[in-house]
Amino acid sequence: MSLLVVGSVAFDDLETPFGRRENVLGGSATYFSLSASHFSPVQVVAVVGDDFGSPELAVFEKRNIDLEGLERRSGRSFHWKGAYGYDLNEAQTLDTQLNVFADFHPVLPEAYRESPFLFLGNIHQVLQLDVVRQMARRPRIVALDTMNYWIRDYREELGRVLREVDILLVNEAEVRALTREHNLVKAYRRVQEEGPRILVVKRGEYGVMLFTPEAIFSAPAYPLEDVFDPTGAGDTFAGGFLGSLASEGRVDVPALKRAVLAGSVLASFTVQQFGTECLQTVSGQELSGRLQRFSDMMRIDEL
Amino acid sequence: MSLLVVGSVAFDDLETPFGRRENVLGGSATYFSLSASHFSPVQVVAVVGDDFGSPELAVFEKRNIDLEGLERRSGRSFHWKGAYGYDLNEAQTLDTQLNVFADFHPVLPEAYRESPFLFLGNIHQVLQLDVVRQMARRPRIVALDTMNYWIRDYREELGRVLREVDILLVNEAEVRALTREHNLVKAYRRVQEEGPRILVVKRGEYGVMLFTPEAIFSAPAYPLEDVFDPTGAGDTFAGGFLGSLASEGRVDVPALKRAVLAGSVLASFTVQQFGTECLQTVSGQELSGRLQRFSDMMRIDEL
Repeated sequence: MSLLVVGSVAFDDLETPFGRRENVLGGSATYFSLSASHFSPVQVVAVVGDDFGSPELAVFEKRNIDLEGLERRSGRSFHWKGAYGYDLNEAQTLDTQLNVFADFHPVLPEAYRESPFLFLGNIHQVLQLDVVRQMARRPRIVALDTMNYWIRDYREELGRVLREVDILLVNEAEVRALTREHNLVKAYRRVQEEGPRILVVKRGEYGVMLFTPEAIFSAPAYPLEDVFDPTGAGDTFAGGFLGSLASEGRVDVPALKRAVLAGSVLASFTVQQFGTECLQTVSGQELSGRLQRFSDMMRIDEL
Repeated sequence: MSLLVVGSVAFDDLETPFGRRENVLGGSATYFSLSASHFSPVQVVAVVGDDFGSPELAVFEKRNIDLEGLERRSGRSFHWKGAYGYDLNEAQTLDTQLNVFADFHPVLPEAYRESPFLFLGNIHQVLQLDVVRQMARRPRIVALDTMNYWIRDYREELGRVLREVDILLVNEAEVRALTREHNLVKAYRRVQEEGPRILVVKRGEYGVMLFTPEAIFSAPAYPLEDVFDPTGAGDTFAGGFLGSLASEGRVDVPALKRAVLAGSVLASFTVQQFGTECLQTVSGQELSGRLQRFSDMMRIDEL
């Protein structure tokens, strides 16, 4: 089944203890769609400027990502500059230039409005809600990402869009800020009261925790010796997670667990190189090999 | 198979956001042995003072724990006072009175010297090494716990005892301090160079990560809505982990994974009440029920 993502396509300047890159392709919708494309057809709604040229276009085309919803405007694309220290857990934002993204008003092409899976990337809640309203009918699954900025300053608007959401994907600090609950089991109950019946908590190197009404599941990050650049790991996870669900066309507990594994493994490729380098080049064989090893790693024989 | 533990038996004053208790039974060997006793016979080598009376004795006797190696001296037992904030991840030590523990020189009763499983609790490295030397032969498994204090000030002595160790159980900060490696996969290689072929990294609410030459495994903490008192969680984990291995009499990967689950589930009982309250009263049925739920929770259907 097809999967629609609304988010940002950007250029990033990245600095980690292991090196730096300037003007590399980034943005939540970029990581998300490259990742999801390994499992399902993906449609992108985003905005770019004149600096988005044929090399960038080729990255998406190689992965058969539908860009009918990519708006082009005159001006520069969204630009983000960030740096990481040795523990790589949190980016320090050095500069954010919204550029054409400042006036982004997502408009869904006709063909996108029937998508059964919708991912609302980290954009203004009013825009997220507007996207939901543009759909021909309620999608089977609406998933949403948000961040502390919206939680702090737009809590009411966030509440309105959460009512339309099935799956909330956030990090640990965000779910605690959103629910004012430190304990995640309790925080999940608060989240359910606001709408989403499924909660995915992203915990960086500690992996991911999934809450559903029937089950709690947790997977570690795929263990790696070398992590070069964590940029985009969360969006890559979300793409693999929802891409896997869309390809199965079901969202029961076994499918959700497999989706957690898929998202985790894709994120492990992302962090092994700078930006989207690894996501662009990883083969289906490498992906399924690592997925199998991850599943074997986690398997427990009967007690 | 029987399991020998050398460590501390203490009285604790505990303060958490949910209440306080004074003079409750504590110490690494106490949590360890109560936990392990759910799976295997346990022998304890420790020292206590005059304040250790029949109520305390009864706690061990009810769980059929062998106290032939419990030395009694005149004076007060080891006393620890600690407090936790709301995040419950790290204890703040308010007071430590070593008392009779200051001159502790473990002497193994004859019957203990053949034990195939040995756990060296967090005591001076010179004493840990002396215990190994007192064994009639090299045990099948020697496991060791340590802490930052020894890593910082007794690194050379620690290196000598590590050569005798099969399984190292430490927390994340400790393994990083020990190996001067942030990445745990790399840290494990350094640990292997020093002796232990198996590493268990305790991560509090993030659970446990197991490294063996053949596999890496990770389990979350058993999810709970209410954590009252994390005191002894690490020692409880170690007791359940080694008790499970001793009861199986094997230390291959499937047995090690089951041991991680056993230790995690026992630790989840410990933190639900103050001190050793829950460990004293939990039934075999409650334990196996939670163990089964934990295993179901973690199960992944074939990809």
